Amino acid sequence: MDGQTRGAGVVGASGYTGRELLALIARHPRLRLAFATSESEAGERLPVVAGRYVPVEEAELGAADVVFCCLPTGESAVWAARAREAGARVVDLSGDHRGGEGGAVYGLPELWREGVREAELVANPGCYPTGALLGLAPAVRHGLVDRGRVVVIDAASGVTGAGRAVRRDLLFGEVAEDYRAYGVGNQHRHVPELARGMERLGGAPPFIFTPHLLPVRRGILATMYVPVKARLSTVEAVGLWSEVFAGEAFVEVVPAGALPTLAGVVGRNVVMVGVAEVDVDPPTLLVVSALDNLMKGAAGQAVQNANLMLGFEETEGLPR
Amino acid sequence: MDGQTRGAGVVGASGYTGRELLALIARHPRLRLAFATSESEAGERLPVVAGRYVPVEEAELGAADVVFCCLPTGESAVWAARAREAGARVVDLSGDHRGGEGGAVYGLPELWREGVREAELVANPGCYPTGALLGLAPAVRHGLVDRGRVVVIDAASGVTGAGRAVRRDLLFGEVAEDYRAYGVGNQHRHVPELARGMERLGGAPPFIFTPHLLPVRRGILATMYVPVKARLSTVEAVGLWSEVFAGEAFVEVVPAGALPTLAGVVGRNVVMVGVAEVDVDPPTLLVVSALDNLMKGAAGQAVQNANLMLGFEETEGLPR
Amino acid sequence: MDGQTRGAGVVGASGYTGRELLALIARHPRLRLAFATSESEAGERLPVVAGRYVPVEEAELGAADVVFCCLPTGESAVWAARAREAGARVVDLSGDHRGGEGGAVYGLPELWREGVREAELVANPGCYPTGALLGLAPAVRHGLVDRGRVVVIDAASGVTGAGRAVRRDLLFGEVAEDYRAYGVGNQHRHVPELARGMERLGGAPPFIFTPHLLPVRRGILATMYVPVKARLSTVEAVGLWSEVFAGEAFVEVVPAGALPTLAGVVGRNVVMVGVAEVDVDPPTLLVVSALDNLMKGAAGQAVQNANLMLGFEETEGLPR
Amino acid sequence: MDGQTRGAGVVGASGYTGRELLALIARHPRLRLAFATSESEAGERLPVVAGRYVPVEEAELGAADVVFCCLPTGESAVWAARAREAGARVVDLSGDHRGGEGGAVYGLPELWREGVREAELVANPGCYPTGALLGLAPAVRHGLVDRGRVVVIDAASGVTGAGRAVRRDLLFGEVAEDYRAYGVGNQHRHVPELARGMERLGGAPPFIFTPHLLPVRRGILATMYVPVKARLSTVEAVGLWSEVFAGEAFVEVVPAGALPTLAGVVGRNVVMVGVAEVDVDPPTLLVVSALDNLMKGAAGQAVQNANLMLGFEETEGLPR
Repeated sequence: MDGQTRGAGVVGASGYTGRELLALIARHPRLRLAFATSESEAGERLPVVAGRYVPVEEAELGAADVVFCCLPTGESAVWAARAREAGARVVDLSGDHRGGEGGAVYGLPELWREGVREAELVANPGCYPTGALLGLAPAVRHGLVDRGRVVVIDAASGVTGAGRAVRRDLLFGEVAEDYRAYGVGNQHRHVPELARGMERLGGAPPFIFTPHLLPVRRGILATMYVPVKARLSTVEAVGLWSEVFAGEAFVEVVPAGALPTLAGVVGRNVVMVGVAEVDVDPPTLLVVSALDNLMKGAAGQAVQNANLMLGFEETEGLPR
Repeated sequence: MDGQTRGAGVVGASGYTGRELLALIARHPRLRLAFATSESEAGERLPVVAGRYVPVEEAELGAADVVFCCLPTGESAVWAARAREAGARVVDLSGDHRGGEGGAVYGLPELWREGVREAELVANPGCYPTGALLGLAPAVRHGLVDRGRVVVIDAASGVTGAGRAVRRDLLFGEVAEDYRAYGVGNQHRHVPELARGMERLGGAPPFIFTPHLLPVRRGILATMYVPVKARLSTVEAVGLWSEVFAGEAFVEVVPAGALPTLAGVVGRNVVMVGVAEVDVDPPTLLVVSALDNLMKGAAGQAVQNANLMLGFEETEGLPR
Repeated sequence: MDGQTRGAGVVGASGYTGRELLALIARHPRLRLAFATSESEAGERLPVVAGRYVPVEEAELGAADVVFCCLPTGESAVWAARAREAGARVVDLSGDHRGGEGGAVYGLPELWREGVREAELVANPGCYPTGALLGLAPAVRHGLVDRGRVVVIDAASGVTGAGRAVRRDLLFGEVAEDYRAYGVGNQHRHVPELARGMERLGGAPPFIFTPHLLPVRRGILATMYVPVKARLSTVEAVGLWSEVFAGEAFVEVVPAGALPTLAGVVGRNVVMVGVAEVDVDPPTLLVVSALDNLMKGAAGQAVQNANLMLGFEETEGLPR
Repeated sequence: MDGQTRGAGVVGASGYTGRELLALIARHPRLRLAFATSESEAGERLPVVAGRYVPVEEAELGAADVVFCCLPTGESAVWAARAREAGARVVDLSGDHRGGEGGAVYGLPELWREGVREAELVANPGCYPTGALLGLAPAVRHGLVDRGRVVVIDAASGVTGAGRAVRRDLLFGEVAEDYRAYGVGNQHRHVPELARGMERLGGAPPFIFTPHLLPVRRGILATMYVPVKARLSTVEAVGLWSEVFAGEAFVEVVPAGALPTLAGVVGRNVVMVGVAEVDVDPPTLLVVSALDNLMKGAAGQAVQNANLMLGFEETEGLPR
C-alpha cells in the first residue's frame, strides 16, 4: 500500500447524498475528486470543493479508481456497469444491486467485511436496513429470537432520507409540525433487503417494518421490539451487544440505562445501539438504533466500503 | 336545561393546557370564565380573554360551577378536594385521580360515557392513554387480540405534552433536530392507566408502551402493533372500527388506505384512527391513532367531560 | 339586510390560502360554499367541508354571490372577469388587480374602508404590504417621516407565504435550519404595491424592502426603521398609533415595552403593531408589525372584504 | 516553533460554546485537552473526547498553555485572572474583557490581527459584533458611510446564541413557529461593543441594532442597511469588499447576485458577506453577513485567536 491518493468519481452528485460524498472526499487524506456529475446542475460550481458539475455523459469514468453511484434506484445500474467497463471499482448507493445483481457484494462491513475487500462492485446498504440489521444482528446471530412471534421495527427518518426530490409532500409547509407513517404493512422497498439481511444472519424471523417521516433534516432512529426466548436483563443484553461489536470503530453500544438519540449521531459515521429489558411477558427486548442517514446510512458507509476496496484503513477520512 | 351560562374556573391556567382551556372557555357559548389561577404569573393579564391571573389561594372556588384542575400530578388533588367542598364539580386534568381516587370517574366518554354525566369528580385521561385506548378498544372489546403475544404501543408526542416546565431537555436547542425515546421498558407513568383501561375493556393483553419526544409543538401519533387471532383485511378492520365508533363526534376512522397524521388533528378535539393489515404471520394488525395532546388529549376532552356533567350538548364549544 | 346566507365560491382552492378560505367559509355564519376549484386535485375530497374539488371550467361562477380568486398572479384576472360577467362580486387574492386594473378597489379596510362597501371587484392586498402599510400608516399620515432619509422595511415570512408551489427551495431539507434574504434591492414584486399604498397615505418616502424566508409555517414579522423629523418617546408613539387604530377590530397596538411576535398572531385575523423609540440620532422610530400571512395577510382579509361587500358585519366569522 | 502539542483547558465546558470547543480541541492537530470544567455536570463524561468534567476549583489551571473561559459574562473575569496567575494564556469568550479590561486585546483577527499574536489575554468578540463588524468594515474604513443618516443592523440568531440557560422563553414550545425581536432600541449588551469596534475602524456612524430570535439551532444572519455618500453598483461593492478581505481564510465575499445564508455557514469557521445595491435614493447599500454563532461567533474564533497566540498557523484545526 502506497501513500498516493486515488481518484474518486461521483455520479449524481447534486442530491443530499452526493453532496455529502463531495464533502467526505474533500476531507479524505487519500482520495481526490475525479469528477462529479449532475444533469440538473451541470456547469454549476460544486459545493465545498473546487470544480463544476459535468453531465454524466461527459464524465471520464475510467479516470476514477472508485466511482460512487448516487442516482435513484432504477437509474444507477447502467452507469455502474459503464464505470466497471471503464475499469473503476464501483460503490452503488442505490437499491439496484442490493439483491446481489451483477455479482455485487452487500457492503455492511460490520457484519460481512471480508467480501468487501475483494469486491469490484459493492451495493451500499439502505439507510433503514443499516440501522435495523446492526441493531438486531446480535439477537439473530445468537439465536435469541422467538420465531413464533413478530419482530417490530418502528423507525423514523429525517427528510433527507427521501432524497432531494421536489415533491409536494416534502415541502416545509407539509412536513413541519407533522409526523406520519408511510409504506406501512411491509410495503416499503427496504423490506426485501431487511429480509435478506436477517436471513443471512441466521434466518429471518417474521417482522413488521413501519417507517415514519420526522420533521428533521437528518437522522434515523429505529425502535425495535424483539420477542426473545428467555428474558435478559438490560445489563446482560448490553454485555452481549458490546461483545459482538467489540473493536468496531463505527458501532457504539450505549451503556445500560441510556439509549441512542438522533442528536448523538448527526454528522458522524456511526450507528449507536442501545438495549433495554421490558417489564412484560412473554419476554421482549427493546433495541434502539440511531444513525445519520446521510453518513453511516449512505455516504459515510460508501467511503468506508471504498476504503476497504482500495486497501486503506477502514476508518480513513471518516468522522467519528 | 336552560340557556344560561355556567361559570368555569381554571386552577393552574398558565401552562399550555391551562391556556388552551382559557381559549376554549372563551369560545364556548355556555361557559364563562369565573377565575384563572397561576402562582408564577399572578397579576399578569390572561391570554385570549379579559382578566388577570390570581393566586390559587385567592380564587373563589365556589363561584364556579365547574373547576378544571391543571396543576401537576401530585399537586392537584388538594385543590380538587377544596373545589368540591366549595360545591363545584371538578375535572382533574392531572394524574391524581385516574386510579379512581376519591370516587373519581374516568372521563373517556367514547368508551364509558354514562358514568361521566352523574360524576362530581372526573379524572381526565392522560394524552397517551386517550389515543391508545380509543385506537385499541375495538380489538380488545371484540376479543380479537391474541393474548399469547405482546401488543406494541410505539408513540411520539410533541413537546407541549411535557407541559411548560422549564427543563433543559425541553429547550429548543436540545429538541430541534432530535428525536428520542424516554420512559422505556414500561416505566412511563401512563402504563398503569393504560393497563387499567384495557382491563376494563375486556382484559389487558401484555403490552409494551414506548413514548418518544418529537420536535413539534403539539400532537401525538401512536403506531400500534396488535397480535390478532386471525388475519383481518384492511377493509374488514376499517369496517369494524367504523362500526364501533359510529355516531361518535370526536372519533374519525380514516378510510382504508389512508392513515392519520399529526397535521390532520392539530387544533381539533378529535382522535383519528386508521387500521391496516400487515403482510406477516402470525397475524398482526397495524393501528395508528393521532390526536392533539392539548385538545382531545387534555383541554378539549376536559370541556367534553364538563359538557356532559353540566347537561350540555357533548359537542358544545368544541372545534372539530 | 336579511339573515340569509350567501354563496361563496373559491377558484384555486387547493393551495394554502384556498384551504384557509374553505375553513373560514365553513365557520362563517352567513356564507355557504358554492364551489371550490382545483385542477390538480379535481375530484378529490375537500378539506374541512363536505364536497369535492371541481375543475374551474366546470364551476358555476354565477351560483356564487362572491367569488374568491386564489390563482397565481397572472392567471387570476381572466377568472375574475368571468365571475363578474356571471354576476358575482369578486375578491381577487392575486396581484392581478392591485394596481387598480379593471376598476378594482384596493381592499385594506382599516385604511380605505369606504370604497370596499360598494366595490364589485376588490384587490386583496399582498401579505407583506398589509403588515407594512398598517404599521407605517400613522407615521406617514401624520407627516412624521423625514423624507430626506430612507425607511427600512426588513421583513420575514413563513413558507406558506410562497404558496404551495412545488419548488426545491421550499423543501423541508432546504428551509429547516436556514434563514435567507430574497428579492433584495427593492426587486420584490410587492415593492410597487408598497409604494402606491404609501403614496396614497400622504406621499411615499424613499424606502427599502427586504423580505427573508423563515423556517416556520405561517406568519410575517416586519421590523421597520422610520426616520422621523423629531424624536418621539415610546409612550407618545404608542399613544398616537393607538389613537389612529381606535375602534379597529383587527389591529392591535401593543402596550409600550412590548412588541408583536409571530406566535401572537398565528390563526388570527389581526395585525399586531408595536412601536419603540431608539437611542440614536438623527431620530428614528422602530415599528414592528406581525400578522398571519394566511389570515389577515390573505384569506381572513378576503372574508373581511367580502363581509363589507355583502353588507355583513365586518367581523362576521373571523377569528380574533 | 516545534511540532509538539500544547495543553488547552476549558472553563465552563458544558454549555453549547464549551462543547463546541471540546470538539475543536479534539480535532486540532496541535492542541490536547488539559481539563474541562463544569459545576452542573461535574463527574459526568465529556462529550466527544475521553475524560470527565471537573469542578472549576479542582482544575489545574497552570497545566494548560491556553485557557478558554466560557463562563457567563460577569463570572468569567475572576477565572481568567487566576489562569493568568497560573501562567496560562487566556481567551475569554464572555463579555468581561471586551472593553479592554485587564489589558485584554480584542480578538477579531481579520481587522486587528497583530495585537493578538503577543497577547496574553484575548477578549473573544461577541457573535453579533463579529458578523456586523466584518460586514461593515470596508464601508467604514473607506469612508463610504454618510454619517448624517443611520446604519441599520437588523440581525437574527439561532437559539444557541443565548447559551444553554434553562429559561422558559427558550423552550421548544415557545421558540418553534415563533420569531421575535428583543433588546430593541439599542438596549442589547452588544451595542457598546459594536460602537467601540466601529469607532476603531474609523469613527462610528449612528446605528441601530435590532436582534431577533430565530427558530433554528445555530447561525446568525445580519441584514444591514448602510447609508452611503455615493451610489455604488453591486459589482463595485463586491469588488471593494473582496479586495479588503483578499487572503483572509475565514471571510468569504459572495459573488455579485448572491447573498449569504445560514445554511452556508453552519459548522464552518467563516463569515460570509454579500453586498447589493438598492434602487433607492438617498443611496443606501445592502450588506448581509452570516456566520455560525458557535464557530466564527465563539469557539472557532477562540481557537483562531489561540492559534495566533501560540504561534501556530492561524487556520490550524479549523473547519472551513
